[in-house]
Amino acid sequence: MERETPQAAPPPTFLRGEDASSDSSSTRARFERLIRRVQADVCAALEAVEEGGEVFREDAWTRPGGGGGISRVLQGGRVFEKAAVNVSVVYGVMPPEAYRAARPDAAAGTEKAGPVPFFAAGVSSVIHPNNPFAPTLHFNYRYFETEAPQDAPGAPRQWWFGGGTDLTPSYINDEDIKHFHAVQKQACDKFDPAFYPRFKKWCDDYFHIKHRGERRGVGGIFFDDLSDRDQETLLDFITECAESVIPAYLPIIERRKDTPFTEDHRAWQQLRRGRYVEFNLVYDRGTTFGLKTGGRIESILVSLPLTARWEYDHKPEEGTEEWKLLHTCINPKEWI
Amino acid sequence: MERETPQAAPPPTFLRGEDASSDSSSTRARFERLIRRVQADVCAALEAVEEGGEVFREDAWTRPGGGGGISRVLQGGRVFEKAAVNVSVVYGVMPPEAYRAARPDAAAGTEKAGPVPFFAAGVSSVIHPNNPFAPTLHFNYRYFETEAPQDAPGAPRQWWFGGGTDLTPSYINDEDIKHFHAVQKQACDKFDPAFYPRFKKWCDDYFHIKHRGERRGVGGIFFDDLSDRDQETLLDFITECAESVIPAYLPIIERRKDTPFTEDHRAWQQLRRGRYVEFNLVYDRGTTFGLKTGGRIESILVSLPLTARWEYDHKPEEGTEEWKLLHTCINPKEWI
Repeated sequence: MERETPQAAPPPTFLRGEDASSDSSSTRARFERLIRRVQADVCAALEAVEEGGEVFREDAWTRPGGGGGISRVLQGGRVFEKAAVNVSVVYGVMPPEAYRAARPDAAAGTEKAGPVPFFAAGVSSVIHPNNPFAPTLHFNYRYFETEAPQDAPGAPRQWWFGGGTDLTPSYINDEDIKHFHAVQKQACDKFDPAFYPRFKKWCDDYFHIKHRGERRGVGGIFFDDLSDRDQETLLDFITECAESVIPAYLPIIERRKDTPFTEDHRAWQQLRRGRYVEFNLVYDRGTTFGLKTGGRIESILVSLPLTARWEYDHKPEEGTEEWKLLHTCINPKEWI
Repeated sequence: MERETPQAAPPPTFLRGEDASSDSSSTRARFERLIRRVQADVCAALEAVEEGGEVFREDAWTRPGGGGGISRVLQGGRVFEKAAVNVSVVYGVMPPEAYRAARPDAAAGTEKAGPVPFFAAGVSSVIHPNNPFAPTLHFNYRYFETEAPQDAPGAPRQWWFGGGTDLTPSYINDEDIKHFHAVQKQACDKFDPAFYPRFKKWCDDYFHIKHRGERRGVGGIFFDDLSDRDQETLLDFITECAESVIPAYLPIIERRKDTPFTEDHRAWQQLRRGRYVEFNLVYDRGTTFGLKTGGRIESILVSLPLTARWEYDHKPEEGTEEWKLLHTCINPKEWI
């Protein structure tokens, strides 16, 4: 595996060749500019609400063959227990099994394919607040290109967009979740009224902890392999989604960051963080792909919460607030 | 998936047919008697050292098609944070991909195979003490039979034994680890002087957190697919290994359970527990097999620690006791 080299400061671009020129209008170049702007904006917004004065630490790295990333992490704040906003731009070669895992639909006939050259760029973020009534946020927007797999004549070059924004509370506040979903719907509706229902369901289906029969949280939107419109339109859509992260999330944090809580609330939050770990390590495509392709481990696993808990056979009593959350994770509902 | 039914008390046997008669001398019957005895003995030994007076809770369950299990869990003790000793006897049908994951060597030519009927019985245990200087123990001994995969003519019936006992400290105490390995070697040497070196290396190779380049702990012994001697000999060997668990582990607990420790020691233990979670959810064959085949989730995931921690890019300072542990996990050594 190629290993990353730490950089004292982020380079102007991680791209190479013509894409690297500052006025390039290639999709790769425009996408890199988007994700770096989103990273800066989200970090600034979170620092503004982080009353403890904690700021994001920044780690930049490059890879020998081109590409690299910037991880920004705030840990141990007063409002945020652990928040990470990462961008990465990767030129790589994926093992054929990783290609099949990433694109099951395109993988037919590639059983004997060789390694697959790919380009992947994305912004990825997980924000775990301290307060058990303040939900965890995840968002990720990415652009992918693959060359044709070696030794699989006829298998096509591919490009696609993927991503989503979803919410994982430990307690249900209808007001918060409705607001969150309304902002996602608004972003989707600007492009196609069919998007929100489709991507909302996709999100519920994706963030499914199969061995528990539970969703990780209360969803949001999720999509992958999006290539059924022109790149221009899809890039605009992704931009809209990414710019909706702050208005969807920050009002909830403002409302919940100082809610009084007990040790019992905290213990339940910790159990739900255990479920978060289960989902990310067992099912999450980005995580399992990253672990297989030798990505920068600390950037991949920064999505895990600072602390988590597993109690044997814990079952919340019916009718309690904890039960209500669990019931909602088992039976996803429509919020708007 | 078949679902389990809770039982008020464990039945005399989980076996069916002729194996179920109390004087059956079949391998299945002898193995079930062994694992139930080991479960009782280990729980009794741990309760004797658990000064808080906590005792093991017992959950028994059966499955509609036959088989079942007994989970015994002690949580929140003074000495033990979470300790579980489970037995299970399962008649099932595994998806062909689970068969291939379980027996990669036998899977050639079974790409188009249908579901594979199997029998699996085992005792499995993870013991997480509270004190950061008292190491975590894991042991597991199991017996497996598969029918020939459907639609794969010529693929053989299989039986094999597997298992091992391994230690995961947060701090290195040479005296403890040498004692632990010496007991494993003693058990192995009664059967074949080649066993210990072979199974010690297998253990180091198996408990490998590949994405970290670290072993989970300081190893012990591990083996799988053991079928190269007669069943009688291998059953005797497994019995010897299982009976070595208490003499290998309890003296260490007695020595370390009351060692004074600081919050920093505890935080480091929690980070190492995070690694434990990573290994179990990403790589452990028993866990991933159980999650895929719809085993009893609470029994499978009881191996996870009560609490765990992930700090971004944590690196112990060179020369510290934390660094020494990490260095040993990266570079496994010979202890005797």
